[in-house]
Amino acid sequence: MATAPTIDSAALDTLSVNTIRFLAVDAVQKANSGHPGLPLGAAPMAYALWTRYLHHNPRSPRWHNRDRFILSAGHGSMLLYALLHLTGYDLSLDDLKLFRQYDSHTPGHPEYGEAGVETTTGPLGQGISNAVGFAWAEAFLAATFNRPGYNVVDHYTYVIASDGDLMEGVSSEASSLAGHLKLGKLIVLYDDNKVMLSNDTAAAFTEDVKARYTAYGWQVISVADGNNVEEVAQAIADAKRDTERPTLIDVRTIIGFGSPNKQGTNKAHGEPLGAEEVKLTKKALGWPEDAQFYVPGEALEHFRAAIDNGAKWEAEWNDLFKKYKAEHPDLAAQYEAAFSNKLPAGWDADLPATLQPAGSKATATRDANNVALNAIAKHIPTMIGGDADLSGSTKTLIAGQPLFSATNRTARNLQFGVREHAMGAIINGLTLHGGIIKPYTATFMPFSDYMRPPIRLACLMGIGPIFIFTHDSIGVGEDGPTHQPIEQLAALRAIPHITVLRPADANETVGAWKAAMEQTGPSVLVFTRQKLPIYAPDGVIEGVSRGAYIRAEAEGGTPDVLLLSTGSEVSLAMAARDELAKSGIKARVVSMPSWELFRRQDKSYRDQVLPPSITARVAIEAASPFGWHEWTGAHGTIIALDRFGASGPYETVYEHLGITSGAVVSAAKALLGK
Amino acid sequence: MATAPTIDSAALDTLSVNTIRFLAVDAVQKANSGHPGLPLGAAPMAYALWTRYLHHNPRSPRWHNRDRFILSAGHGSMLLYALLHLTGYDLSLDDLKLFRQYDSHTPGHPEYGEAGVETTTGPLGQGISNAVGFAWAEAFLAATFNRPGYNVVDHYTYVIASDGDLMEGVSSEASSLAGHLKLGKLIVLYDDNKVMLSNDTAAAFTEDVKARYTAYGWQVISVADGNNVEEVAQAIADAKRDTERPTLIDVRTIIGFGSPNKQGTNKAHGEPLGAEEVKLTKKALGWPEDAQFYVPGEALEHFRAAIDNGAKWEAEWNDLFKKYKAEHPDLAAQYEAAFSNKLPAGWDADLPATLQPAGSKATATRDANNVALNAIAKHIPTMIGGDADLSGSTKTLIAGQPLFSATNRTARNLQFGVREHAMGAIINGLTLHGGIIKPYTATFMPFSDYMRPPIRLACLMGIGPIFIFTHDSIGVGEDGPTHQPIEQLAALRAIPHITVLRPADANETVGAWKAAMEQTGPSVLVFTRQKLPIYAPDGVIEGVSRGAYIRAEAEGGTPDVLLLSTGSEVSLAMAARDELAKSGIKARVVSMPSWELFRRQDKSYRDQVLPPSITARVAIEAASPFGWHEWTGAHGTIIALDRFGASGPYETVYEHLGITSGAVVSAAKALLGK
Repeated sequence: MATAPTIDSAALDTLSVNTIRFLAVDAVQKANSGHPGLPLGAAPMAYALWTRYLHHNPRSPRWHNRDRFILSAGHGSMLLYALLHLTGYDLSLDDLKLFRQYDSHTPGHPEYGEAGVETTTGPLGQGISNAVGFAWAEAFLAATFNRPGYNVVDHYTYVIASDGDLMEGVSSEASSLAGHLKLGKLIVLYDDNKVMLSNDTAAAFTEDVKARYTAYGWQVISVADGNNVEEVAQAIADAKRDTERPTLIDVRTIIGFGSPNKQGTNKAHGEPLGAEEVKLTKKALGWPEDAQFYVPGEALEHFRAAIDNGAKWEAEWNDLFKKYKAEHPDLAAQYEAAFSNKLPAGWDADLPATLQPAGSKATATRDANNVALNAIAKHIPTMIGGDADLSGSTKTLIAGQPLFSATNRTARNLQFGVREHAMGAIINGLTLHGGIIKPYTATFMPFSDYMRPPIRLACLMGIGPIFIFTHDSIGVGEDGPTHQPIEQLAALRAIPHITVLRPADANETVGAWKAAMEQTGPSVLVFTRQKLPIYAPDGVIEGVSRGAYIRAEAEGGTPDVLLLSTGSEVSLAMAARDELAKSGIKARVVSMPSWELFRRQDKSYRDQVLPPSITARVAIEAASPFGWHEWTGAHGTIIALDRFGASGPYETVYEHLGITSGAVVSAAKALLGK
Repeated sequence: MATAPTIDSAALDTLSVNTIRFLAVDAVQKANSGHPGLPLGAAPMAYALWTRYLHHNPRSPRWHNRDRFILSAGHGSMLLYALLHLTGYDLSLDDLKLFRQYDSHTPGHPEYGEAGVETTTGPLGQGISNAVGFAWAEAFLAATFNRPGYNVVDHYTYVIASDGDLMEGVSSEASSLAGHLKLGKLIVLYDDNKVMLSNDTAAAFTEDVKARYTAYGWQVISVADGNNVEEVAQAIADAKRDTERPTLIDVRTIIGFGSPNKQGTNKAHGEPLGAEEVKLTKKALGWPEDAQFYVPGEALEHFRAAIDNGAKWEAEWNDLFKKYKAEHPDLAAQYEAAFSNKLPAGWDADLPATLQPAGSKATATRDANNVALNAIAKHIPTMIGGDADLSGSTKTLIAGQPLFSATNRTARNLQFGVREHAMGAIINGLTLHGGIIKPYTATFMPFSDYMRPPIRLACLMGIGPIFIFTHDSIGVGEDGPTHQPIEQLAALRAIPHITVLRPADANETVGAWKAAMEQTGPSVLVFTRQKLPIYAPDGVIEGVSRGAYIRAEAEGGTPDVLLLSTGSEVSLAMAARDELAKSGIKARVVSMPSWELFRRQDKSYRDQVLPPSITARVAIEAASPFGWHEWTGAHGTIIALDRFGASGPYETVYEHLGITSGAVVSAAKALLGK
């Protein structure tokens, strides 16, 4: 752990803080768009953190053991960009001048992928919840890899959060869990400026935030004057000392500080100050009124000390790791594999090409999922994951592993409690941290709705967690419509960059897991509660990897009709095919576990599976019909659910809601005029 | 307010409590599905509440002034069904025997529409958050309609909630707001049994719940022995006395109480006890071991006192209302109109058929929205709504109205803070309460993701709140991809029973509001941030009401190509039409503000707008292409976004992402081989 460097002169502090402030103000003004109020108010705390505590290496932004900094209040993005530029990241003054312009490195909200940006923020509550994932990853990796004398994983996770972040329920969930897990190296600076976008916080947010965080088991520290760099610095030092509890530092700030006509009000929040007010603000804070993007040399030099410091810290860590590697070669190799962000060789050595032979005992895909997950997890020591209090149902526990807890920090099964939204945001943090390979979450599919914001962000960032949803249709049965997903499949498939996989039997489940592991972006695995028959396993793994394939060819040549389906309804299509054969109708069954993977195939493969000349097509899926026209075309028939489900034994529900092989047979005959 | 009746004999209490318990146990056992643990543990508190405090009328379940009871922990549905049966609602013992069977009145989770069920629960956190809406409605309506001596609106809202409810972020948001608003007639009984589905709560939920609720500004009362009816009763009495603060009663219970081998563990949570354990439990609690669905006569008689009490309470209220009507005839008429659940005559008297003439000043639909909303709201005194801290951007304030607050209880503008999820759940409660006509919410469209669980429940219940989402595309511009919806339109359109409306200009906005008001189910209104040109207003209101219509016919007869679009992209289709005309290509522009309304039209109208013979079709929408094949067929072209947006001035973003009239022109020409 670092100790605070000797204290700089107050004048240099002020100069440096104002440099941050006016880079932000000028950039917002030039873009004529953005949020000046947060950088003006929060610059001192950010300055204290970045110059006195943050262990990072601007010239090596992905150094594993850096402290993580997350601007949860992403609308204050210019605060972060100013810090990144000033401390020497690859972000020029010209980049700052392109704030919020198309294709710039300084988009409206911080975007993962830009140097020094740990996670995409903007949707409130996400960043602070990601941070819980970062801190969790650190705790797990530290316990897993550190050995006496070798704290190769040892860093803090810092957050600046706003009132909006703390109003959002996802942060409540994540914070409760962080307290429960005693993630003591998580430190949140709360920019407590008493102003939200539309009004003072008095209009909506009068709870006792500090008491709430104390109730979560956090250390809570108050900073009465957010402009007092020393007071903030002391608070951070105190926060770091308590490694048993996460810390909330409530920093009382003034939004838009310095703006004579707008500070302390929501007028400073979400729009440029205006040219005249910019001048008045500069005047008020003793800044050259007409200078734009002005960076005093002393301030720059002071900030750029981060470059040498960072190089030194990383070099020290490299030395440490070298010795660690000599003393603990196996562990070091595991560490390097974990941080390589690649699947280790042999990860699928125990994943059978055939989990079950054709005609073997009917198996729920959630159960096959458990076998596949465990076959994979045994080869990837830092693959971890968990569920929202449904492990007995989702079947996603790693065998032989206890639950990760405040006292067991190497356990690989995570328990999120009934907190789906935080689970999603935390898994994003676990993924982003590095060192964790393919973390996964699990809950019932209807509750994917609770997790959509982080699923979207995973897609936007292009990171690769695996989201498992079981109980994937009216096949849930007795629990009824609240627990039976209908529109969730369509809603998930509609997200850009996602890969959704809904396997049809135990063998397709193996293929689905394999495909999910091989995606760089996020995957969604969708499994049944109910048991499904097992079909011929030949070619299934490859078929699934291509998204859709011929599950059963029409007997006797060119098909008259194509039967398209996914998951549990493939068995209905198979039964319909046999029934149609009795009437001399040749039906091909196409299993389409992943529309996204299928779209990525070349046209010749797609046309081979779904020949354009065959327009008689029947699709069946126990879900919303929304989206199926892409595959059935204008002339096909879609057997699906334009309604919610119903409570009852699942076979009865399928029957009453018309999701049957008989319906497929009738539709096929009608299409063929027979 | 009621006073507690004289205390019954302890023996009768125990007999009655056990009657509830074993109806639940037997029903779960018979269904071989369900959750016995909650009813066994929570029966005493439910008994105390229902027999000593709850003002309701089993034979008149919709009596306006009843206390509302919400079982937020919907998985314990048999607790509620037992109470409804025993107190005399239209729910027979035979109905209980059909628990969780198809088409029964006793589905797996409580469903709105069944007598005595105030709201559909099951997805955790929703019920308690709905309850905040119920209490909010009561506070608003009481302040609006009550006059000295005439508390015509005067009831409590009671909740039984579980640890899962309190782990969910939505309940944190709603509870913080309830404390802020001092909704003192909201009383939550927390079934604190220390056991969740997969484990003890010690595995995930160790925060100090009571301290957290105190931090929210709630009164918190502890009941050490949840089996002690008197202790619970006293706590409820104390809760009722404090009308300044909502109350959380932390009732320590034992899940599965009485079950010798399962009580106090998660084995009692989510599955039947098993026939043998049922017997053992009955034996342990002194119940006839072999009796099924046994209701002792004394217990039934005791519970059924609710019928006479209810009749008396409602009669008293009817008398009060009669006198109120005599003394305050105008108010009483307003009250009756409010509770009629119908739009008042003349509600649209100020809604212009043409908001702006063709070619008039370009207007953002969010601005037209403000005009339309206000034109309607002036005629509906109990139409209220609000936003998640974005009123300056969503333009959804009712003019001249302050914010509803702890001190202004008649104001019609609601401020939810940055709490989208709770906003959705609360608006469901406001709608369900009755007396509030067409309440609405507003936020930016990407954050519809935060609200999906309550939007889904509104659709499932078939209730009619209006969800407004502005900033509906990449037209948001500089805020970038986190704030630019892409998949949200498709994801919303996929929900059964929803009506999504995305108007193309100011006049369509009027039509969209009109259509939304006339829906019995929920509507989603989708508006732009950016300004849009105004087209000929003739026939627009009717066109919107039909979901899609010919916005501009092809010049010179039968169209060569159909240009399909919604919202802001209709103007691109219009420009493309003009451009195509220069090449002699006849293009019809079809505006499709609501796919759902269009699907509900008869075939002849649909074929008139989209003639099946014209297969050259180009769709353009600045959103995911997902779902558009339904309208373009296999041969059409969809110009949409298979990616996320980008930060920059919106015109630039449109151009770079290819959402342009030029793209429509090229696609149309390509389709026509020109």
